[in-house]
Amino acid sequence: MSSGDAERATAFAPASIGNVAVGFDILGLAVDALGDRATVIKRAQAGVGVSAIRGVVQNLPLEAAKNTAGRALEAMLADAEVDFGVDVEIDKGIPLGSGLGGSAASAVAAVVAANRVLGGRYARLQLLKFAMQGEQVASGSLHVDNVAPSLFGGLALTVGIDEPRVKRIPAPAGVRAVAVHPHMELATKQARAILSPTVSMSDFVWQSANLAGLIAACYTDDVDLIRASLEDVIIEPQRQSLIPGAGAVRAAALGQGALGCSISGAGPTMFAWALEADGERVREAMQAAFTGVNIKSDGWVVEIDSPGARLIA
Amino acid sequence: MSSGDAERATAFAPASIGNVAVGFDILGLAVDALGDRATVIKRAQAGVGVSAIRGVVQNLPLEAAKNTAGRALEAMLADAEVDFGVDVEIDKGIPLGSGLGGSAASAVAAVVAANRVLGGRYARLQLLKFAMQGEQVASGSLHVDNVAPSLFGGLALTVGIDEPRVKRIPAPAGVRAVAVHPHMELATKQARAILSPTVSMSDFVWQSANLAGLIAACYTDDVDLIRASLEDVIIEPQRQSLIPGAGAVRAAALGQGALGCSISGAGPTMFAWALEADGERVREAMQAAFTGVNIKSDGWVVEIDSPGARLIA
Repeated sequence: MSSGDAERATAFAPASIGNVAVGFDILGLAVDALGDRATVIKRAQAGVGVSAIRGVVQNLPLEAAKNTAGRALEAMLADAEVDFGVDVEIDKGIPLGSGLGGSAASAVAAVVAANRVLGGRYARLQLLKFAMQGEQVASGSLHVDNVAPSLFGGLALTVGIDEPRVKRIPAPAGVRAVAVHPHMELATKQARAILSPTVSMSDFVWQSANLAGLIAACYTDDVDLIRASLEDVIIEPQRQSLIPGAGAVRAAALGQGALGCSISGAGPTMFAWALEADGERVREAMQAAFTGVNIKSDGWVVEIDSPGARLIA
Repeated sequence: MSSGDAERATAFAPASIGNVAVGFDILGLAVDALGDRATVIKRAQAGVGVSAIRGVVQNLPLEAAKNTAGRALEAMLADAEVDFGVDVEIDKGIPLGSGLGGSAASAVAAVVAANRVLGGRYARLQLLKFAMQGEQVASGSLHVDNVAPSLFGGLALTVGIDEPRVKRIPAPAGVRAVAVHPHMELATKQARAILSPTVSMSDFVWQSANLAGLIAACYTDDVDLIRASLEDVIIEPQRQSLIPGAGAVRAAALGQGALGCSISGAGPTMFAWALEADGERVREAMQAAFTGVNIKSDGWVVEIDSPGARLIA
């Protein structure tokens, strides 16, 4: 065993806002205010065991192949070709079916912790691929818009699936993200199933312009361009009906000066971007709108730049 | 008449590469090596007259409402509410139906020249709207991917149609654009008509990633990411059959180290991006591939940053 190895390690991986309105399946934003922890413990027996699930979610599969963290670790150990196995304990801080990337965070925390047990042999981009295998178990598709920001932090763009490249997009100066989680559950698989398999050419062009505009605006701190481009014309109109009060929440956010407001990932969490001075007011307005349809919620105002998953023990 | 007015003025507007592979209808790149000139002359009689069309194209409509430059000037004079009219003489440097934005360039040159005659009262973004009215006459659609770079120069992204915002995307260091124009004509209307009215969700996600990746790569001089993202998975596969040798031209460019190669606008011009050291070799290979299917061509290697339309007299 090399000096870099460890018998056990614990990692934290943040929640994340998927899609960020205009980057369906490719753009995500870490929300460092909450996250999942995974503790990986070396064991003699080969394979992966899920030995505990604690925290805000507990009714998750204990069978490794059906558990996002377990499946990610199986992919990792198969690649590493080691003669030992691992147990993983998961501490969930991210609510189930919240649209905050909980399944991705568990997988990311697990592979970051396991990488310590394996002597740090894997670069982050390789860890991304293992975590994607885990995420697929939960969502039914191989997408990266939660895995990438949870692992790399900040606003993360992923180009390519087979050979993914992750690009950290700089946070526009003075802009904050607001996330409001209504106390209801929405399964990602359900939210994906209602999506049309095609996009009209005109919506495709419009959304493309918004995406390119948002990326360019982030590099140039162009708040006006963020306001013009942070709008989802394709996915949100199809999913909005799944979230009671979604329209009112969006209107409330924009009414308080938000630069844009949309659904986080598959929902039901809603997010907004706002100038720092408006952040708390936007959060309050969004939560009040959910209250208006008798739904309790939690809300956060966070930095757009944040560190991503890391070892904590 | 204010001191800023002039009795006549002449402007040059460059050719442009439309779409730039991943930004259908929203991204374009000025090609300063060739362009159109327009001379606008004040006259007592109200309205717009197209008094001459010279250069590499001559068989264009002389009726102002059917001429791209004429139509743009009509829109401009209607907005300006002046009590005089203008004649416009057009010197075409951009071949007809080449995919190099000739109709856009004529309209842009005309409005830039006319703005001098009108005392410079319009900002560039207002000129863009007038030129778009002209471009619509030729292409049948209100798109901006040629008008914006021809007017603003460089690599230009346009967000929004009703209230367009143009963002100059910085040229990645050390990268050049190559354009090769085969001696054949392709009507934009025809090239648009063959496009499917819908895009599959998976292609939409893939192309979105490529577009966002290219924009981010330009801001960070990330040549590897340009190579990964400068690929059109939606439009080019549908249009490639309209251009004899297109597949061979693309293969030839990539074989000489091009970062990407696709169709300029509606075609038949093909373009590539390449490192400065490879630019001439890529151009030669692309032209040789056209020669291989018995089509003569012209080729240029140009800077990605360039100044856009300007007064020359």
